[in-house]
Amino acid sequence: MSTLTFHSAGESHGRGCFAFVEGFPFGVPIDLEAINAQLARRQKGYGRGGRMKIETDKAEFLSGIRKGRSMGSPILMAIWNKDSRLETTPELDCPRPGHSDLPGHLKYDAPVRDILERASARETAARVAAGALCRLLLNQFRIVIRSHVIALGPVALPEGFCPSFEDLAKAEDSPVRCLHKETEAAMMAAVDEATKNGDTLGGILEVVADGVPVGLGSHTQWDRKLDARIGQAMISIQAMKGAEIGPAFANARKPGSQVHDPILYSPTRQPSSSGGFSRPSNNAGGLEGGMTNGQPVVVRVAMKPLSTLMHPLASVDLRTGQPMRADTERSDYCALPPACVVAENMLAIVLAQALCEKLGGDSLQEMLLNCKSYREQISRIRRPPEQ
Amino acid sequence: MSTLTFHSAGESHGRGCFAFVEGFPFGVPIDLEAINAQLARRQKGYGRGGRMKIETDKAEFLSGIRKGRSMGSPILMAIWNKDSRLETTPELDCPRPGHSDLPGHLKYDAPVRDILERASARETAARVAAGALCRLLLNQFRIVIRSHVIALGPVALPEGFCPSFEDLAKAEDSPVRCLHKETEAAMMAAVDEATKNGDTLGGILEVVADGVPVGLGSHTQWDRKLDARIGQAMISIQAMKGAEIGPAFANARKPGSQVHDPILYSPTRQPSSSGGFSRPSNNAGGLEGGMTNGQPVVVRVAMKPLSTLMHPLASVDLRTGQPMRADTERSDYCALPPACVVAENMLAIVLAQALCEKLGGDSLQEMLLNCKSYREQISRIRRPPEQ
Amino acid sequence: MSTLTFHSAGESHGRGCFAFVEGFPFGVPIDLEAINAQLARRQKGYGRGGRMKIETDKAEFLSGIRKGRSMGSPILMAIWNKDSRLETTPELDCPRPGHSDLPGHLKYDAPVRDILERASARETAARVAAGALCRLLLNQFRIVIRSHVIALGPVALPEGFCPSFEDLAKAEDSPVRCLHKETEAAMMAAVDEATKNGDTLGGILEVVADGVPVGLGSHTQWDRKLDARIGQAMISIQAMKGAEIGPAFANARKPGSQVHDPILYSPTRQPSSSGGFSRPSNNAGGLEGGMTNGQPVVVRVAMKPLSTLMHPLASVDLRTGQPMRADTERSDYCALPPACVVAENMLAIVLAQALCEKLGGDSLQEMLLNCKSYREQISRIRRPPEQ
Amino acid sequence: MSTLTFHSAGESHGRGCFAFVEGFPFGVPIDLEAINAQLARRQKGYGRGGRMKIETDKAEFLSGIRKGRSMGSPILMAIWNKDSRLETTPELDCPRPGHSDLPGHLKYDAPVRDILERASARETAARVAAGALCRLLLNQFRIVIRSHVIALGPVALPEGFCPSFEDLAKAEDSPVRCLHKETEAAMMAAVDEATKNGDTLGGILEVVADGVPVGLGSHTQWDRKLDARIGQAMISIQAMKGAEIGPAFANARKPGSQVHDPILYSPTRQPSSSGGFSRPSNNAGGLEGGMTNGQPVVVRVAMKPLSTLMHPLASVDLRTGQPMRADTERSDYCALPPACVVAENMLAIVLAQALCEKLGGDSLQEMLLNCKSYREQISRIRRPPEQ
Repeated sequence: MSTLTFHSAGESHGRGCFAFVEGFPFGVPIDLEAINAQLARRQKGYGRGGRMKIETDKAEFLSGIRKGRSMGSPILMAIWNKDSRLETTPELDCPRPGHSDLPGHLKYDAPVRDILERASARETAARVAAGALCRLLLNQFRIVIRSHVIALGPVALPEGFCPSFEDLAKAEDSPVRCLHKETEAAMMAAVDEATKNGDTLGGILEVVADGVPVGLGSHTQWDRKLDARIGQAMISIQAMKGAEIGPAFANARKPGSQVHDPILYSPTRQPSSSGGFSRPSNNAGGLEGGMTNGQPVVVRVAMKPLSTLMHPLASVDLRTGQPMRADTERSDYCALPPACVVAENMLAIVLAQALCEKLGGDSLQEMLLNCKSYREQISRIRRPPEQ
Repeated sequence: MSTLTFHSAGESHGRGCFAFVEGFPFGVPIDLEAINAQLARRQKGYGRGGRMKIETDKAEFLSGIRKGRSMGSPILMAIWNKDSRLETTPELDCPRPGHSDLPGHLKYDAPVRDILERASARETAARVAAGALCRLLLNQFRIVIRSHVIALGPVALPEGFCPSFEDLAKAEDSPVRCLHKETEAAMMAAVDEATKNGDTLGGILEVVADGVPVGLGSHTQWDRKLDARIGQAMISIQAMKGAEIGPAFANARKPGSQVHDPILYSPTRQPSSSGGFSRPSNNAGGLEGGMTNGQPVVVRVAMKPLSTLMHPLASVDLRTGQPMRADTERSDYCALPPACVVAENMLAIVLAQALCEKLGGDSLQEMLLNCKSYREQISRIRRPPEQ
Repeated sequence: MSTLTFHSAGESHGRGCFAFVEGFPFGVPIDLEAINAQLARRQKGYGRGGRMKIETDKAEFLSGIRKGRSMGSPILMAIWNKDSRLETTPELDCPRPGHSDLPGHLKYDAPVRDILERASARETAARVAAGALCRLLLNQFRIVIRSHVIALGPVALPEGFCPSFEDLAKAEDSPVRCLHKETEAAMMAAVDEATKNGDTLGGILEVVADGVPVGLGSHTQWDRKLDARIGQAMISIQAMKGAEIGPAFANARKPGSQVHDPILYSPTRQPSSSGGFSRPSNNAGGLEGGMTNGQPVVVRVAMKPLSTLMHPLASVDLRTGQPMRADTERSDYCALPPACVVAENMLAIVLAQALCEKLGGDSLQEMLLNCKSYREQISRIRRPPEQ
Repeated sequence: MSTLTFHSAGESHGRGCFAFVEGFPFGVPIDLEAINAQLARRQKGYGRGGRMKIETDKAEFLSGIRKGRSMGSPILMAIWNKDSRLETTPELDCPRPGHSDLPGHLKYDAPVRDILERASARETAARVAAGALCRLLLNQFRIVIRSHVIALGPVALPEGFCPSFEDLAKAEDSPVRCLHKETEAAMMAAVDEATKNGDTLGGILEVVADGVPVGLGSHTQWDRKLDARIGQAMISIQAMKGAEIGPAFANARKPGSQVHDPILYSPTRQPSSSGGFSRPSNNAGGLEGGMTNGQPVVVRVAMKPLSTLMHPLASVDLRTGQPMRADTERSDYCALPPACVVAENMLAIVLAQALCEKLGGDSLQEMLLNCKSYREQISRIRRPPEQ
């Protein structure tokens, strides 16, 4: 029996996107505006195509909420499509390289339209709604998640530019979620260039969760390791093809003496999330042995350039077997800024799940009590210096 | 009800490593030597410390095998430790940065020894045994998995050096699993240097699976996406901190027109794994929309330098709270070559699971029949050119 | 990764009931009228209270359907409540014995209203909708499910009255789903009597699935056994407290020689669901060793009398701790006939899941092909008499 | 991610039985003698055949235990077979009615021997070992499980004979686990008679768990309901075909006013498992709405007579298709007393799992603390009478 789980339903041109969250505890105050604010964040960003202007996403609770707080029941949320025309949207016969069009068509023996409707990034609205819900729980434990863009296409942050967690809040003000002003301008120029060329851009984003208590996840089994579960959640996002915990690919090139984060300790007067231990660096990205270590959780994700090109690549007409340019669907030129929002909210889901596993309990109050006991435990176990 | 699952048990200095595989089909010919050959591959490689010489791992079947083939029952395999002294191995009081020592100690309120015994890379022997078993199934479908090293610490393959799948077989002959002779020498020198300094090295490895049929995994739900499940499996391996499908982090820097793999088609006379479709490139790493696309599956994994340093980092004595150098355990200087073997075999597990999901069936014969039907399906659905 | 799964959401006085079905194959023709017919069957039956007249349940697909067939995507169905007033329905302070009121209140530290809204039998509408969907798949494999009432309160079918599977279709014509005319009259009189007394009745129902192929489920692990999974599904239905496969409690009192079903064989000209084997009796209820054996699957379920009594039992006022009669909610006097419909449809879900596990495949066509291969396999393996 | 899980491996004539328990908390004192005592209880009982004398089962820990307590790691236990001859045991060609022989043979396209080796009741030794381990955890929460026999073949306890929980301890002294002396004698005579006739007997057993806190399980989703999960666990035991929570089949025949258990309350001075609530009866068998209600958990299970008859039933020779008597394997005449032990221990597994879900925590100490908080919560929430 799992604790908290998330699944979605819905097609791009269907009735809407639906988020189904099971095992959410009783008694969490529900702020619909906070959820809609996350949905609005997902719709912003430089490089979006036409569709985003059509839809202003709002979540609606179909179950699980009463008197402004969660009931302990399964929570179903709808983000209705204003533009529901699944039956009349034309078939697509020339599959687009990079999309699920061709493998899905072959696997399911189904028209490409049936595949792409579900594979569409429209589904990320459900992820954001579910993640926003989970954030309402995480908030109660002072866990905060932020994100920014590290590289957009060929343009990257300068080496060594490393914003603080507080600074990350300012990414909201940047159309490309970039905190470095000159880089930001170069990123926007790169998007303009791609748009002009009918081309697309991806990039690399970073998500950071602050306030996460030590000890979420577990080293005891491969599928309980939290770093791996975070990696899965990230790569599962549409167009994401790689993930690293902290700067893992760069760390792989360095000797151990320069990578591992020394352990410091100062006795705490009051129970803390890390029991008084601290680290002068965070190369581990907050995870050691598949468990959080009390440092911020840092994950970087590689997004491929979007697969729908206005100058389409070579494909095949499935009706004839003859070479043909790939079909096109309305799409963006660059979706990296909203992808940050999706990644933040997927991380929120995974962390909420891990928190429920750790703390048990069926209500927010019980979780808070159990968390208090846990914080006391981890702050107590060190024996005082024997003098 | 899942189909094929894998879990492990065992501690580093306990009775042994144990691999528990559920849902493995009936009738797969079992070649114990092939499994032991995989275990032997895991024990080789330049940069290993003392322990590897002690143990010559051999797998033993404790259940699930009769008359040289699988029974359909759960399969339990043991790799017995020759060096079993769990009760007498001393406690470890100064946790090692980078290891699970500290977060595990805090989470479980347990001695560090209880944590590290389970978190140890010794556990990968169980992964290799289970993966080797799964390869016996994959073999029947002509799915082959190979690996090599892309970067070892600061030394990387030259840009543009891209060996064929056939060439990868030669990685077996290199102590650092490197196919480029000059780079190999530099890699070995880097290991020597690290060893001399009491330091450790990590690196980047690549695993490739050839012959995988189109349509494993699914785009329909986040936790069914095969790329994400592969990412999880890879990051779950001890010391692995990042994974990418194909060259995802590099692709993230390029425009879409240079990344996506055009679709070609030529009618096949006989049913194939990809239904007659092919691609002139494989930037997608064989996965589109969370499904295999008939191209080789390519995954790259970032391994951090090992966390046990002979010149230990700053830590804390958990008995006193006072600063102290981290403890040491017998360890390697570089474990990248054997990590390739572990990654290969974890990929084998995930692919075998996805294959069982796709094909159903309870016996090898039934799976082969269903596979034949599927190959006919995907080769038949294209209408011939209407002339 | 499971194959087909079902979960529900929704509260009794909330927006509606929602059925979430994952892993349903592509290409199954969807007949909404057939689904609504199942929902209508659930609303009939002698002994219903006021509520059933208010609601005429209709299912609506929110996802997963296009051009009249399933897409392979998650399928979300809504049965909207006409009577949605979750926020204004009064609190309930004196928990009703037999309901989840008190344990739920204590477990979740929640108002009783939050518990009963989710625990209500209204949720069974979602089960019926999901089961009706699964029946559309089972239909394609000629698996048919029927039910009737064996005992309603103190009134039971006469010993030895054992209708054929064809006869069971006539249960639709009986207000108490009883096929024996005199017993039917006595059952209706018992309901009238209970109604008059402000009391409630339960009973025992029987569900039968015909056409189920041999070999669904598995003996290899406790949680793969199909009899146990059917038992779980049945007892999970509101007010169901016991389940038996075939007449298990009666069989427990007999010697083995009178219980086990002899095995007969006649070579089949054409592939069948049981490979030419048959049984002159079906005391096993169609399941041996946790697998279907090609005979009809028979399960009997014990329903307790409904817990909401119009002459309420002793309870406690949770605001004061003082003794008080239990509160009442609008309820039925006897819900056994609709419970048959719920049980049928839960069995449909479990059988559809087991069928997908056995056959694999992602589309109806692929499942049908794999089923054909399987039928050939089981009809082929007997060696002909050597003469 | 589940919390505590159990799976088994092993064949009847293979190397042994193996119990694999995942998610068991750190720090539970391990008493191997207590586990072996459970295994010994499984081997006793009137009506056993020859095999039981050969084997004296002892459990051995292969992982997860250090310094006499659990490590938080996966726990693997072996009960080695003294009689290991899987490769030389002869094939069985005439499948035994009632066994998995025929459906397993057809499903897996496998020799009957491969099926029966895994389906054998020998596997219950692994269940008992795992359950005995779980009891060590339950002990810490003062949860105690006992069992007795209600009916053995045609002989049943007299109507109204209802032993107290304390009395159940005396079932250990009866060869048929019957607490009523005259009935015990009649049961033993029935076994003698069946033995003489080459026939077999089943019966009905009852398992009771005392001290279970209110609020295990959940009403919120069908597969979280604890009564249903207990039902699944029971029916999954070899030869078990039915299960009821409390006297469910008898309750089904009574009006609600005689079935539901009134709610009483007296303020508690110290936190209790049920928050001060009590019931004068326990017709609900300790479960309401899929949750424990603080009363003893009572489950009754129907066991069919064993399927291996010394006077075998009609079967078919699978080599020829010709009619033939079923083969025989060494077997018991009545296995009801040991089945009680198996059922007790399966219940222990399910309750331990539900307890871990409720309390969270990674160590016994953390669970005990969380339990204390929970007990305070449920004892606190009633407002005092306002005067």
